Amino acid sequence: MSFESAARLTGKDLIGIAGLKPGEIQLVLDTAEELLEVARRPIKKVPTLRGMTVVNLFMEPSTRTRFSFEVAEKRLSADTLNFSTSSSSVTKGETLFDTARNLMAMAPDFIVIRHPNTGAPHRLAREVTASVINAGDGSNEHPTQALLDAFTMRRHFGSLEGLVVVVAGDIRHSRVARSNAFLLSKMGARIRFVAPASLMPAEVDELGVEPYLRIEPALEGADVIMMLRIQLERQNKVNFPSMREYFDFFALTPERLEMATDRALVMHPGPMNRGVEIDSRVADGDQSVILEQVTNGVAIRMAILYLLAGGRSDAAAGS
Amino acid sequence: MSFESAARLTGKDLIGIAGLKPGEIQLVLDTAEELLEVARRPIKKVPTLRGMTVVNLFMEPSTRTRFSFEVAEKRLSADTLNFSTSSSSVTKGETLFDTARNLMAMAPDFIVIRHPNTGAPHRLAREVTASVINAGDGSNEHPTQALLDAFTMRRHFGSLEGLVVVVAGDIRHSRVARSNAFLLSKMGARIRFVAPASLMPAEVDELGVEPYLRIEPALEGADVIMMLRIQLERQNKVNFPSMREYFDFFALTPERLEMATDRALVMHPGPMNRGVEIDSRVADGDQSVILEQVTNGVAIRMAILYLLAGGRSDAAAGS
Amino acid sequence: MSFESAARLTGKDLIGIAGLKPGEIQLVLDTAEELLEVARRPIKKVPTLRGMTVVNLFMEPSTRTRFSFEVAEKRLSADTLNFSTSSSSVTKGETLFDTARNLMAMAPDFIVIRHPNTGAPHRLAREVTASVINAGDGSNEHPTQALLDAFTMRRHFGSLEGLVVVVAGDIRHSRVARSNAFLLSKMGARIRFVAPASLMPAEVDELGVEPYLRIEPALEGADVIMMLRIQLERQNKVNFPSMREYFDFFALTPERLEMATDRALVMHPGPMNRGVEIDSRVADGDQSVILEQVTNGVAIRMAILYLLAGGRSDAAAGS
Repeated sequence: MSFESAARLTGKDLIGIAGLKPGEIQLVLDTAEELLEVARRPIKKVPTLRGMTVVNLFMEPSTRTRFSFEVAEKRLSADTLNFSTSSSSVTKGETLFDTARNLMAMAPDFIVIRHPNTGAPHRLAREVTASVINAGDGSNEHPTQALLDAFTMRRHFGSLEGLVVVVAGDIRHSRVARSNAFLLSKMGARIRFVAPASLMPAEVDELGVEPYLRIEPALEGADVIMMLRIQLERQNKVNFPSMREYFDFFALTPERLEMATDRALVMHPGPMNRGVEIDSRVADGDQSVILEQVTNGVAIRMAILYLLAGGRSDAAAGS
Repeated sequence: MSFESAARLTGKDLIGIAGLKPGEIQLVLDTAEELLEVARRPIKKVPTLRGMTVVNLFMEPSTRTRFSFEVAEKRLSADTLNFSTSSSSVTKGETLFDTARNLMAMAPDFIVIRHPNTGAPHRLAREVTASVINAGDGSNEHPTQALLDAFTMRRHFGSLEGLVVVVAGDIRHSRVARSNAFLLSKMGARIRFVAPASLMPAEVDELGVEPYLRIEPALEGADVIMMLRIQLERQNKVNFPSMREYFDFFALTPERLEMATDRALVMHPGPMNRGVEIDSRVADGDQSVILEQVTNGVAIRMAILYLLAGGRSDAAAGS
Repeated sequence: MSFESAARLTGKDLIGIAGLKPGEIQLVLDTAEELLEVARRPIKKVPTLRGMTVVNLFMEPSTRTRFSFEVAEKRLSADTLNFSTSSSSVTKGETLFDTARNLMAMAPDFIVIRHPNTGAPHRLAREVTASVINAGDGSNEHPTQALLDAFTMRRHFGSLEGLVVVVAGDIRHSRVARSNAFLLSKMGARIRFVAPASLMPAEVDELGVEPYLRIEPALEGADVIMMLRIQLERQNKVNFPSMREYFDFFALTPERLEMATDRALVMHPGPMNRGVEIDSRVADGDQSVILEQVTNGVAIRMAILYLLAGGRSDAAAGS
């Protein structure tokens, strides 16, 4: 399996990995590769989005993703406006529909949206002429996270094809796991999901992944091990294992890491619970690329903004 | 009645419509007309306020107004600083007076203030050399809202003179209604206030408006119908009608809309309570200009900043 | 005692006054003197930090200090990113160590940090390549406050040498008092601490200050009187005097002010509790330089950023 990069993204939005062709994914990764070096310049700024406005509409608390987007936007010289739940009209009972139309009346070029409901970015994208970027919707998708994960793998292995990728944790509620499954299967990697039965999603077959109820067998031959954040706030729910149980059965420890291939990468979307899903010796060890993921996240988000802006100006030139 | 535009605004501040002459209002609307096209450019930015600092001092929760100002400020290339109640020293017991003097010591050029107390922007303006813009004070004034409403009407009818404008809802507590009454009567329009007796202001005579206790007779011959947001948080107060009662007696429905002139505009300052004060078929109908109001709001706020900045640089040049 | 300005700051960070040499302090004050005039220009902006990113990481509520830094950063054309406790991952249980490493992965040039724990800026500075500026850590240091205080004194007296400076209030919990003590003793001033015994720090001897349990004798011959903010939230603690008692025994009143020298300056780091630690007639009187402190604060923070940026680009040029 080998892919040629697309010439451009076909849609005006980035809603999910499910809607991208392999050539488009390739294009995003290639573009991020070029933009990665902007962060190494003394003046870390290019004028690509000068005079364009990006609205960051975060309807769920977030630090790292919002921050990563904001850094990417400022490196591209965009004007940014932050909009978060606590201060927004949504709390006054306004619908997403009205919020969206109101935002559009102010003519932003991009809306980056995180929302607790599956499908919210999709519905927003249909309503507005701005380019919509999904920064996480419910337990559905988190496409820029999957792209930065893939980018990090590709930078280490040269290609995603044939890689064995283990994703472990609360898979059922994880949009990161879903977006990764979509992306990696499109690009020819093999995905293994590890979770207690209560946290394994129902649609594991459709996703084309191999389910494991224990972590040890899943680690055999693994090239990448991605540990998901255990959401401690779910702890008192039925069927949710205790933190101690979780650590004993699923945490990535140095001993378990040895079961994977020698060059296996350790990944985590953050923020980590050290001592819960991951042992500090692994998180800070030689095989960890957790901080590279953060650095790469800025480049991926710059790439998405850059490519969607290209589409926008083409459209403007043609009209 | 016909007005010539003033050559400039006479004050350093915009505190209320009550303090503006008709020629000044005309000047603001004419300037907004020119600035409206900036939002249609690919690079939506002009360098007018480059190097100037605007402090947005919001002592009441707000999304739409703060956001509209921030967009306007960034389109004019100003540096913006946001200051909101929750994070401010005001919560540590500091007086508005001390906050103001402290802000001034940092030499901002503009302060946009929203405050729960009537008169706060006026008191602030006396203390500081910055230009103060009132973004809503208690139940007193909200001048930029009235200006954007008038701008929207003028764009549709060519002139405000002789227009019949209906304002319906909780008039007693509405700074939007008061500022509109001041502006429209100065510009030769006729204003009709519609509210249950308990929500009708005492000073209706001084405002020069015609009061109506029922909406149907007020709609006869109306050119503009402005529905105010019902503040649901007041619902349990004495004398406040129930939501259901309110809808039955006062809401703008398609049937009621037919009682107005054919070309009547439907306006709402937002955020709307669909199904409470306005029926969705009206809110989204052909006669609705609710989203134009939002777009026009950015142009009006740019116009105010632009005109006050002109006054500031004249002053600087003269000193 | 006389000092020559250093040619540059030796460290990459500003963690505390304790780590600065007198020549470095002199350099900061001289640089601030030059930058002070930027605030008087119509375009209050210089391109020094263009393309550089400053993260404001405030783990304690703050208005005035964060605001002052943000104004300084924008005057120097930096891109700023605000990060505060309520919205940060720290609330999700992430350690400062992980937050810091994550921030660094996004490659900021500066991190301004306020943190409730003594030593947090120091630990952060060891972890990251960015320049770290301490904006207050626990009851340890608040170096930019001491620098702006010293700058304000020097602008009035020409030199700090031999000045008699009284600092009064809850000294034990005051990082402002500590940083002032370090700075003033390095620069040849004499410091008198005034506090009830329960609020006097244990290490008063090491700090080289003269302790006073009553304010009247401390005021004799004083050139500067700095009143600290009484933290009303500590009021119900054991050994803490009542507000009334505090006012009677320690507040700076017009009568007490007459006990100092005629030209004595009245200072306060803000926000003030009028009628608690300071009488309004004094706060607003001729000898008060409280607002000059605010203005000078922006210049001092610009100077620090400017000087640390110089070190950064030297390092870049040499590499």
